[in-house]
Amino acid sequence: MGRFLSTFFCLSTLFLGAAIAADWNILHQRTKNGLKISLRNYCESWRMNVELHNIQGFEVVPEECVSYIGKYVTSTQYKVDSERAIEECRLYLGTSCDLKKDGKDAWLFDIDDTLLSTVPYYKKHNFGGEKLNLTSLEEWMSQGKAPALEHSLKFFDELKSMGVQIILVSSRREHLRSATVDNLVDVGYHGWTSLILRGPDDELDSVQSYKANVRKQLISDGYRIWGVVGDQYSSFEELPSAQRTFKLPNPLYYVS
Amino acid sequence: MGRFLSTFFCLSTLFLGAAIAADWNILHQRTKNGLKISLRNYCESWRMNVELHNIQGFEVVPEECVSYIGKYVTSTQYKVDSERAIEECRLYLGTSCDLKKDGKDAWLFDIDDTLLSTVPYYKKHNFGGEKLNLTSLEEWMSQGKAPALEHSLKFFDELKSMGVQIILVSSRREHLRSATVDNLVDVGYHGWTSLILRGPDDELDSVQSYKANVRKQLISDGYRIWGVVGDQYSSFEELPSAQRTFKLPNPLYYVS
Repeated sequence: MGRFLSTFFCLSTLFLGAAIAADWNILHQRTKNGLKISLRNYCESWRMNVELHNIQGFEVVPEECVSYIGKYVTSTQYKVDSERAIEECRLYLGTSCDLKKDGKDAWLFDIDDTLLSTVPYYKKHNFGGEKLNLTSLEEWMSQGKAPALEHSLKFFDELKSMGVQIILVSSRREHLRSATVDNLVDVGYHGWTSLILRGPDDELDSVQSYKANVRKQLISDGYRIWGVVGDQYSSFEELPSAQRTFKLPNPLYYVS
Repeated sequence: MGRFLSTFFCLSTLFLGAAIAADWNILHQRTKNGLKISLRNYCESWRMNVELHNIQGFEVVPEECVSYIGKYVTSTQYKVDSERAIEECRLYLGTSCDLKKDGKDAWLFDIDDTLLSTVPYYKKHNFGGEKLNLTSLEEWMSQGKAPALEHSLKFFDELKSMGVQIILVSSRREHLRSATVDNLVDVGYHGWTSLILRGPDDELDSVQSYKANVRKQLISDGYRIWGVVGDQYSSFEELPSAQRTFKLPNPLYYVS
């Protein structure tokens, strides 16, 4: 396995030089149980445990893993992982959803790192290795230049063509509404039923509770929420839930 | 895909080392969105989406990923990933649990692939690439030769020394009780409060409902369930839940 990984890694870091590649795979750390591990082992286990939701509430990516996480979110692997998640939504929709087509079948999406990518922002901000600066992030969002996640866009269009109501539920704040709409439309998203952003009152709640309240309201409005796609566990937790939830990978930041 | 697979299997049976490593990383598949990917990309995204719980209810590991999954579950990475999950349990216990020490603080564990490893069994059964044969698996379990997951054993002992009641909740069936006890004790586990196995009535339920019923009973018996560690989502889902849940990686099989 070691030789395997180093072959793979050397190929992928060809232009960064063998020294760094070698360093990633050298066994120079020991875990509490005395296991000899490399920096790659360490960072990969950090990322896996973020996705397993064992690591919660982290404020920054560990400094020693910033470069590893940066490589991941700009890699083919990240795209394939996300695309597979969307493929599972498609499979579920095609096999397990008895759509009524009465205008009350609904599907919920997060926006950031679900429909639009914030990777270009984090590329300039140490790939999650710096504490969140909300002013700076919102300034970037207000420019409306976030690219689409292509596989999400395709699925969005498929839902629309099946008559499913698309509801966008984001932790973005209300003052970003017009920039958000412009950005979404610019990259190809249109035809959603509702775009729900956080008003001043919602900011007193956790994002998790705010999103649960939105689902509660939607259900009391008669919607059947067949699915939610998001990149944060706070998009799914707390009741009421959707029929199914789908988690996209995101090791850059944690929203609770 | 077919041609590619047979190429891969020919290579893997005829050659070792570099030939296989190279083949794993060759970009010769395309995803639905036209992304060029390698077999490694494909299998890694399968595994990640199993852990994200986007892929549910799979009966076998995809044939083309059996060798990849076999390598993973016998790798240092698997150990590091599991150890990190347990490290997060320890962190949570040390910082967020206000233990009452009245004999009602409880922690729940799964058994298979949480306390004891079934990897030696799956090594002989194509690493999840074959449909489950319960008779054969139970025969292996009845021999009581499953090794411990070392990091789980350490944490088990730490919990015990803190006066936390340890409750083992397994989908193993009652007839395996004595073999299970012998196996646990042989590899170092002792001093648990209760070992709960599935009786004939519980077999009518899904494992998920059976485990939720166990938690319900424990709570009504006055236990505070601070945490659950398991390798399957069916160990956590359905209410009532624990304060926190911790998921160990397991891409070998799915229990619903």
